[in-house]
Amino acid sequence: MAYLKDISDKELKKGILDFMESAPDLYLPGVSIDSTIFGFHNNQLNVLLLRFGKSEYFVLPGGFIKKDESLDDAALRILRERTGLLDIYLEQFYTSGNLERYKKNIPKELVLKIIGKMPHSNWFEQRFISVCYYALVDDTKVNPQPEPFFTEFKWYDVTKLPKLLYDHELIIQKALDRLQTDLDSKLVGFNLMRGSFTMADLQKLYEAVHQRKFVRTNFQRKILSLNILERLEKQYSGKAHKAPYLYRFKKAWN
Amino acid sequence: MAYLKDISDKELKKGILDFMESAPDLYLPGVSIDSTIFGFHNNQLNVLLLRFGKSEYFVLPGGFIKKDESLDDAALRILRERTGLLDIYLEQFYTSGNLERYKKNIPKELVLKIIGKMPHSNWFEQRFISVCYYALVDDTKVNPQPEPFFTEFKWYDVTKLPKLLYDHELIIQKALDRLQTDLDSKLVGFNLMRGSFTMADLQKLYEAVHQRKFVRTNFQRKILSLNILERLEKQYSGKAHKAPYLYRFKKAWN
Repeated sequence: MAYLKDISDKELKKGILDFMESAPDLYLPGVSIDSTIFGFHNNQLNVLLLRFGKSEYFVLPGGFIKKDESLDDAALRILRERTGLLDIYLEQFYTSGNLERYKKNIPKELVLKIIGKMPHSNWFEQRFISVCYYALVDDTKVNPQPEPFFTEFKWYDVTKLPKLLYDHELIIQKALDRLQTDLDSKLVGFNLMRGSFTMADLQKLYEAVHQRKFVRTNFQRKILSLNILERLEKQYSGKAHKAPYLYRFKKAWN
Repeated sequence: MAYLKDISDKELKKGILDFMESAPDLYLPGVSIDSTIFGFHNNQLNVLLLRFGKSEYFVLPGGFIKKDESLDDAALRILRERTGLLDIYLEQFYTSGNLERYKKNIPKELVLKIIGKMPHSNWFEQRFISVCYYALVDDTKVNPQPEPFFTEFKWYDVTKLPKLLYDHELIIQKALDRLQTDLDSKLVGFNLMRGSFTMADLQKLYEAVHQRKFVRTNFQRKILSLNILERLEKQYSGKAHKAPYLYRFKKAWN
């Protein structure tokens, strides 16, 4: 799933300097957007991260808001530009405005390492309030786009994160808390399990999100009580008495 | 519950001009905070609103973030300054950044009406992203503080709101949605029903928040299943067989 961009140091420097020069005219000052994109794959919950320059640090896919653009539109555009993801259900869940997120100020050092000397107007020297969104997607749909700043795109197991900049580790934790709380009600909207699936498939998704095991019978009772599933024919397996039922979501997206 | 401040037009003008002159040095640009404060009183759910100047328009208690202050600290300070409310449990729930909230641009007209001519630097001409908080409080604790801009503080029934500026009506609706979703889990934290209460008292709070009636037996079963109540002695009423049980929250704040 990793994607390494072949970019020279010179190109990286030019990309960052061009951005810093144009940013104040294009974007609202002091507000950024960061999106936590969860992917479910091989029974594991992953999160999409971008390598900052060629450093050892990663960040969430994020960006800035155009002066005539709504927050939600900006969040969708940024995600499309960074990852190629279209038409996904992004949910705003938190706005980070604590002061500790700037304590280490590593990004400035990292930028300086690349560009050598700060230009007169330094976009990154502002304090940013970050509006945070999250989504749960089918991680095979991601198609990273080339651009300055980020040289690698990688899915990380949420329990094994790399070094992250700012307060992105805290943001991922908050996104996971919200995903756990909201999974029942967002299951259909996320449009994740298309077509039909077994109760065992759905249980694997729940176990990955909640990071714990569920008892099969309790899980089945709880899910059926949500009243969002339609039961289909039994899955053919040759051993009819062991075949599991197939389900699909009642609001058919298929 | 209303509070009318006796302020002359001249004082109002001076207050606003002083604010506009000092604001750019004190506060982060482009970000505001608005708080939806729900009050429960006489079995009715109210929301605290401030009259903008001497106009017919009301707004939520809100303000701006100091350059060296976290979002949460700013929200608490603003609420303390506007309403005298101390140590309350404010929950961040939404950040509003749509473009429609500025379409009418009434505040500029209202400000112009008071100050006559815009000063060179107009703080209000920026586009603001508003970070929104909500709380549910005992509405007898509110003690409005005198200040420019607002001449009246009033609790309004959430179903009968006056004219509101910006997108504050939408924000109140979103806050109410969140309160309805979160009431079960926030009940203890809000510290609203101190001491002991009957199941009927609690049902009245739920009915006010959800804007509908509940069946007594169903309500009782649901609330007891939350496992947050401790049952006390029966309330003495002279007719022992009709006396209701008293309850209090298990995490005793009393």
